[in-house]
Amino acid sequence: MTRIIICGCNGKMGREVSACAALRADCRVVGGIDMNTEVKCDYPVFTKPADIDVAADVIIDFSNPALLPSLLQYAQIHKTPLVLCTTGYNTAQIEALTRVSKEVPVFYSGNMSLGINLLIELSKKAAKVLGNGFDIEIVEKHHNQKIDAPSGTALMIADGISSVMNENVHYVYDRHSQRKKRESTEIGIHSIRGGTIVGEHEVIFAGHHEVITLAHSAQSKEVFAVGAINAGIYLAKMSAGLYNMSDLLK
Amino acid sequence: MTRIIICGCNGKMGREVSACAALRADCRVVGGIDMNTEVKCDYPVFTKPADIDVAADVIIDFSNPALLPSLLQYAQIHKTPLVLCTTGYNTAQIEALTRVSKEVPVFYSGNMSLGINLLIELSKKAAKVLGNGFDIEIVEKHHNQKIDAPSGTALMIADGISSVMNENVHYVYDRHSQRKKRESTEIGIHSIRGGTIVGEHEVIFAGHHEVITLAHSAQSKEVFAVGAINAGIYLAKMSAGLYNMSDLLK
Amino acid sequence: MTRIIICGCNGKMGREVSACAALRADCRVVGGIDMNTEVKCDYPVFTKPADIDVAADVIIDFSNPALLPSLLQYAQIHKTPLVLCTTGYNTAQIEALTRVSKEVPVFYSGNMSLGINLLIELSKKAAKVLGNGFDIEIVEKHHNQKIDAPSGTALMIADGISSVMNENVHYVYDRHSQRKKRESTEIGIHSIRGGTIVGEHEVIFAGHHEVITLAHSAQSKEVFAVGAINAGIYLAKMSAGLYNMSDLLK
Amino acid sequence: MTRIIICGCNGKMGREVSACAALRADCRVVGGIDMNTEVKCDYPVFTKPADIDVAADVIIDFSNPALLPSLLQYAQIHKTPLVLCTTGYNTAQIEALTRVSKEVPVFYSGNMSLGINLLIELSKKAAKVLGNGFDIEIVEKHHNQKIDAPSGTALMIADGISSVMNENVHYVYDRHSQRKKRESTEIGIHSIRGGTIVGEHEVIFAGHHEVITLAHSAQSKEVFAVGAINAGIYLAKMSAGLYNMSDLLK
Repeated sequence: MTRIIICGCNGKMGREVSACAALRADCRVVGGIDMNTEVKCDYPVFTKPADIDVAADVIIDFSNPALLPSLLQYAQIHKTPLVLCTTGYNTAQIEALTRVSKEVPVFYSGNMSLGINLLIELSKKAAKVLGNGFDIEIVEKHHNQKIDAPSGTALMIADGISSVMNENVHYVYDRHSQRKKRESTEIGIHSIRGGTIVGEHEVIFAGHHEVITLAHSAQSKEVFAVGAINAGIYLAKMSAGLYNMSDLLK
Repeated sequence: MTRIIICGCNGKMGREVSACAALRADCRVVGGIDMNTEVKCDYPVFTKPADIDVAADVIIDFSNPALLPSLLQYAQIHKTPLVLCTTGYNTAQIEALTRVSKEVPVFYSGNMSLGINLLIELSKKAAKVLGNGFDIEIVEKHHNQKIDAPSGTALMIADGISSVMNENVHYVYDRHSQRKKRESTEIGIHSIRGGTIVGEHEVIFAGHHEVITLAHSAQSKEVFAVGAINAGIYLAKMSAGLYNMSDLLK
Repeated sequence: MTRIIICGCNGKMGREVSACAALRADCRVVGGIDMNTEVKCDYPVFTKPADIDVAADVIIDFSNPALLPSLLQYAQIHKTPLVLCTTGYNTAQIEALTRVSKEVPVFYSGNMSLGINLLIELSKKAAKVLGNGFDIEIVEKHHNQKIDAPSGTALMIADGISSVMNENVHYVYDRHSQRKKRESTEIGIHSIRGGTIVGEHEVIFAGHHEVITLAHSAQSKEVFAVGAINAGIYLAKMSAGLYNMSDLLK
Repeated sequence: MTRIIICGCNGKMGREVSACAALRADCRVVGGIDMNTEVKCDYPVFTKPADIDVAADVIIDFSNPALLPSLLQYAQIHKTPLVLCTTGYNTAQIEALTRVSKEVPVFYSGNMSLGINLLIELSKKAAKVLGNGFDIEIVEKHHNQKIDAPSGTALMIADGISSVMNENVHYVYDRHSQRKKRESTEIGIHSIRGGTIVGEHEVIFAGHHEVITLAHSAQSKEVFAVGAINAGIYLAKMSAGLYNMSDLLK
């Protein structure tokens, strides 16, 4: 039974983690950290890490980059493993968490969905096996309120694939403006926006009379909470080091 | 039993029409027109329309715009219905064929596939019913040797949808360069290129917690030959007028 | 502004209708009917139709067949249009609601999703146009807790298609037990069960080197609430008669 | 430059191998074996293995089980690697080829497509990582002339997945006859038949609000020829042993 502290427990994702943990037998939320302490929770909520007065096996963080220093300090003092699900860290912050990971287990991944990370692993494997005879294209679909394109996840997939290719690939987002054949070094990335689509990613390997498609579809944000809890349970048993979803998938 | 003359009978599409007609009981190829008369055919091949000395119920043309005047002249004199599957006519040529269609049945369509034209009809129906609450996106996939994007068929679909929308829509080909929400007046058009994909078109209607997808996939150029023959059999029974695939679908 | 009374307002679907109506400017919930009156609502809740003391333009019913007699009686007396979203009526009940529809507008459909009903209309159109040269298969996907198969919606689609086919078709659910070619009169129906899939339906028309696929995917039960409200607003303006989703789609 | 002898060179698949090899720079067909010697080939054709009088680096066999003994005998005598693409061997034949593989490299796989074998590897990886929280379903699509169901490839995929599962799984082909929830130990296998579909296989992993789909689509039989040639070039460099597509994918 892994005891969890959720940092950002009253935010959207923090509440998802609470709800998911409540349905599982292998973990329990024992405390939360949040500026907002007015929400009624089944566990004590502290305004900052230094105030925590309960014992825990792991901290899962879905807050924001500003809290990183105080979280790292707490982790160092109490040797509490730290799952960082927050995005948008700058270079100095990445360096800081890497430094602390030499003393405490730290888990850090740009996307906490088990499924998405599996998709990336499988795409890398496929790219290695199929080699240069197949053209690779990525299609991602999200709701019409999303302001960035392509999705961060689509770029994670493309970067993962690029890392195992022999050739120097480049990303192509638009083909309508020019008349030319596709180059074998392109990875096409297409951003579809519409309705309330939560998140879909598809990787297409198109070869000679043969197409392989690997796809992931998320129906709710809950998948990230599930991945975070799995990472927390995994990390609670590990020794110091910097881990990510690839380690969990091994 | 409809008697067919194929114009461009020794070209790629002409041979497809021959092969398809040979498998059907409702039609028969009785003659061909082609500059190249050295290929052995089961029917007489003439170098120009004026030389035709066999009786036919319809001419199916898969040649090139340059032959249009002589075809129209033959059709006028012999009152032979004309299925024009050639693309790339200029305005004067469109006017000429429209004029002749007042005396002889003429069938002219930018895409001869029954399936593609059905897809366009269904997409228009869906756009009308679903109204402005759904976002529309088109994805087309073709082989890596295709030099233009988007495909002419994708544009035909988008134009068909636009014609039934209340709002002024505009086409969007690239979203990666800017940070903004999707506008309800966008139709996104995405061109995927890879391997030997013959031709796939997908129209996505994404609404509130609901997505409708209409798709067409062609496995060979044969689908255009089948559509041309169907059009020929249909046209042989019609009176003078200008017809297209929408008429055939009614 | 259409004034709605929801019958079964404190059930799962009733609450969805409330929530959806609250977000729209073209309608307002003015009352509810439910055995359970302890839930706090923004509108008065009555235990039976006879108790209603507010004026309304339409009643939307998501309760159960047992309430039908009292609903029909209320509709007759007050000339209030009735949208029946309850399933499982017996023959006598269908007869009763048909009789009442001669005096009051009654809307009755086996599936209230606008999208699903559009899918059925488009499938019928496609079956008519493509004729017997295409093989039709239906694939439906639902969560692993669903006990019936195929889904009622898959059968609605198959029945709709059958109604426009020239041949007598029959449904096939299993092909693994015999060695024989597919007959052209088959409609294959395949039930996929897994995870938390809300509901997906796909109709495949497979022809000679050409496949057309029409698909609907629901991400939440909300789509049925939206359809019910649309039906209610539509019905409030109609004269006596029995209506269904096909009428709304025209 | 690998020198290839094709056994069954005038059969459908044999001619595909010839055609594919002719387009490649890394191999050359130097001879064929076929009962039918009347077809004009660019290489000598022998009626049985014992008659071969040309030097070769590998034999690719797309004939039938009856030829196995003479092929194995030739391979043993001449130490010529053997790629067996024929299906339907009985147990004694499997034993015989396994025995010979101790002296000569032998490659034997139930499906020669690189893509299909990759799909199987990726499906096994996904099943291992996702564990028992995901429901697995397989959908395969083939033309309406295919008499067996499910396809041999679908069973290869299901068997591959079963081999890495902790639980005892069983295959389910039909759900329409009973009212019960899906068991977590089921693998659903669905056989869609229609038109001229060459071969499509899809593996669905449906979890909690998350679905992963791995799919392969073949547009022509050529993919098996390509896989056979790749296997031949690979095998020509190997020492004695029994190899399959998993080895080639490593």
